[in-house]
Amino acid sequence: MASLAVPWWLFLIWTCLGVSLVHCDPTYETYYFDQKIDHFGFYEDSTFKQRYLVSDTHWKKPGGPILFYTGNEGDITLFSNNTGFMWDIAEELGAMLIFAEHRYYGESMPYGNLSYSDPKHLNYLTSEQALADFAVLIRFFKAHGDAKHSPVIAIGGSYGGMLAAWMRMKYPHDVVGALAASAPIWQFEDLVPCSLYYQIVTNDFKKSGSGCAESVSKSWAALNRMAETDDGIRWLSSAFHMCSPLKGKEDVTAMKGWLSETWVNLAMVDYPYPANFLEPLPAWPIQEVCKHLTNPNLDDKGLLQNIFEAINVYYNYTGETPCLNTSQTAVGSLDDLGWSYQACTEMVMPFCPDGVNDMFEPQKWNFEAYSDDCYKQWGVRPRETWITTIYGGKNISSASNIIFSNGDLDPWSAGGVKQSLSESLVAILIPDGAHHLDLRSNNAYDPKSVIEARALEVAYMKKWIKEYRQQLNIWDV
Amino acid sequence: MASLAVPWWLFLIWTCLGVSLVHCDPTYETYYFDQKIDHFGFYEDSTFKQRYLVSDTHWKKPGGPILFYTGNEGDITLFSNNTGFMWDIAEELGAMLIFAEHRYYGESMPYGNLSYSDPKHLNYLTSEQALADFAVLIRFFKAHGDAKHSPVIAIGGSYGGMLAAWMRMKYPHDVVGALAASAPIWQFEDLVPCSLYYQIVTNDFKKSGSGCAESVSKSWAALNRMAETDDGIRWLSSAFHMCSPLKGKEDVTAMKGWLSETWVNLAMVDYPYPANFLEPLPAWPIQEVCKHLTNPNLDDKGLLQNIFEAINVYYNYTGETPCLNTSQTAVGSLDDLGWSYQACTEMVMPFCPDGVNDMFEPQKWNFEAYSDDCYKQWGVRPRETWITTIYGGKNISSASNIIFSNGDLDPWSAGGVKQSLSESLVAILIPDGAHHLDLRSNNAYDPKSVIEARALEVAYMKKWIKEYRQQLNIWDV
Repeated sequence: MASLAVPWWLFLIWTCLGVSLVHCDPTYETYYFDQKIDHFGFYEDSTFKQRYLVSDTHWKKPGGPILFYTGNEGDITLFSNNTGFMWDIAEELGAMLIFAEHRYYGESMPYGNLSYSDPKHLNYLTSEQALADFAVLIRFFKAHGDAKHSPVIAIGGSYGGMLAAWMRMKYPHDVVGALAASAPIWQFEDLVPCSLYYQIVTNDFKKSGSGCAESVSKSWAALNRMAETDDGIRWLSSAFHMCSPLKGKEDVTAMKGWLSETWVNLAMVDYPYPANFLEPLPAWPIQEVCKHLTNPNLDDKGLLQNIFEAINVYYNYTGETPCLNTSQTAVGSLDDLGWSYQACTEMVMPFCPDGVNDMFEPQKWNFEAYSDDCYKQWGVRPRETWITTIYGGKNISSASNIIFSNGDLDPWSAGGVKQSLSESLVAILIPDGAHHLDLRSNNAYDPKSVIEARALEVAYMKKWIKEYRQQLNIWDV
Repeated sequence: MASLAVPWWLFLIWTCLGVSLVHCDPTYETYYFDQKIDHFGFYEDSTFKQRYLVSDTHWKKPGGPILFYTGNEGDITLFSNNTGFMWDIAEELGAMLIFAEHRYYGESMPYGNLSYSDPKHLNYLTSEQALADFAVLIRFFKAHGDAKHSPVIAIGGSYGGMLAAWMRMKYPHDVVGALAASAPIWQFEDLVPCSLYYQIVTNDFKKSGSGCAESVSKSWAALNRMAETDDGIRWLSSAFHMCSPLKGKEDVTAMKGWLSETWVNLAMVDYPYPANFLEPLPAWPIQEVCKHLTNPNLDDKGLLQNIFEAINVYYNYTGETPCLNTSQTAVGSLDDLGWSYQACTEMVMPFCPDGVNDMFEPQKWNFEAYSDDCYKQWGVRPRETWITTIYGGKNISSASNIIFSNGDLDPWSAGGVKQSLSESLVAILIPDGAHHLDLRSNNAYDPKSVIEARALEVAYMKKWIKEYRQQLNIWDV
């Protein structure tokens, strides 16, 4: 691959300029804002400190636009460091950048160390509360002289993209438009087929090397056979360099879940150049992975040995990982714990690999079992229909000024909006794009599709800004 | 006045047909729906029974429209009985009528008798929770075969009108449009002058009889002088036929508040025919009241004796009220207690009569004092800026398909939308209209302005229904 001919340090320099690969101290200030813990009730009247980052280097005041990142499930610096697009376009738009941390993540803990201690303290971890935080923060900014007439654009990726879209839907008075990158707002109820997500992962592997998807497909039976004997389980522990040895069938079941998640993650971060979003990875990592999975017709040990080599690309590209741990799938600051709570309350996303059209072990979607598991883990029960009730499901044509961008390689595009719904609810497809590639910094190895997508996104933003200023003349100023 | 020449019983028949004046068993069924007490958190997972009324006599199924009354602060039957407009147009539109009771009012008590016991149990009395109740209920209806493609129109008056407008803003996927009658969505913060409300009341009195507003204006000083002596206070108790004698200056202060509210209420219900919304009243009740207030230049006792005669029109038109009670201003089922809590949390509406441009005692708006009073009464503090933060204040031009109707006589028009904001955010003014006159039944004494307003409202509803059906053909069916 071409990208491997380029020395590693060159990527560091490039991405440092675009604040993409590593943390390079981009020029921002960190602030904390007092937010009500409960926006929707008056009994809990305490506040917490919400962290947010501001970069106004390129801001044309007064009235220059504000690009507002609607933080998602993780430390906000992860997103400020992986959303180079905003840094890249700040100067062109004369924009201020704000990255607002999502409550219950990073440093924005409503109850400090107690925030995750029980369902009572977790009660205010919802998308509605997070959106209200953003609304209050934007209002605070717009109360200041120079930002009074600043159009605000919500930007986010993944769950942050869902929040950006919902922000425009629910608070159109606060944001003139939204860029919702790789936002699976339709991965709920029966809005999309629950099997599609895993089919996309499978297609990525099929495209990336002969025998690749088939090898993964066959690995599950091999693992199951290994799990039948103590010898097999011991062999697995050793072959996969496990930090703690597998102790029985149940651990192999957990291992299969961990492997599934690894394949999915690879599909999410199948970027055309080395990057470090979930793990440090080479360019087109699935192609690297598939180099180890060319022969699906080996015996169990031969096949599984290759599977280990394959996932080692993901977990140990730096060569510095001494052993693997089935409880971890990312070194980045995405917070699986917080998301697990959200998935057990509002974010009920049905998935159902069928093992026929995809390379995964078949698993039916069973809401009752899911709900029981949630109750065991968190002491709360999910509400299957709530997200579509509040955010409208597929019936969102009354909204306006939202860009839904999706990459074909990204499994989350399964639940995304892939066809424009109106002149101002615009779908942008990025055929060679993985998970919100468009939000990443410009890069010499960017496919043409993402360069075009970014240009179109900027064009829409300029249009929204212009329309807002025209409207100001009529209604406000 | 012409209306007085018509016998009383004839009004009963007319209004009974239109289900306006008295409860005449209109054809509806009463149901109860299990709603989550807390839509916005998962710790409180209990449900309560929300009452709603359904009339499908004229419903053209499948797909006939649903007119959905977004219940406000009172027993829902009060609104079904005083929203004759919906009953009047049901046949023409082939519509089903639904009247949904607002949580914490009427029979829809989240915690039964404990609902009002403390701030913890009151915590879920908010407009957002009420809107979510409506959204869940509409979803439930639309899950049924015959209503699957039924366009739903939100209709409400006063706070119910605010809810109707907000329903369209926040849940446009559930309602194709909203009729927000006499909805003071801008009576918050500094969106409108806080003195306007009382000026409108004053104008109504000025127009309704010579010397009338001036008499009220002078009554405050007379009351204050009376309050200076025990004799004066005794005289007041007797002259005003008080059920319990006034016990001191403080009671006279309370009495002045009660009188103010009485004048305001009269302005709200200054209908052109006998009606029974807050109290049973004659046609154009302010004119009746003003017949007793023609001479502002009497001595204190003379003036106050006339004030008593005037308010007696309001409190004792039936002649059956043995004595007056300063703690009560309406016999209808509007629930002052619940509204007081809402006013002490979200619904912070600044008022400030100045005594110069209005006939009231001057009173500055003092949020801190207001907040302290709220804390004393309810153990919670109001959030002054929350309503505009969540519902957008004056910046609502992204919304669509809302009619804001306001009557010139109605003090609540002060906080209403009185100019169209776009082609589909339409203001309708009713020069001779009091509080949501347009929502009342057709009546032979209706001024032309309200007849025209209703016709226009129906025309918009038909347009929304048509557009929805056109869109269905494209996107859905």
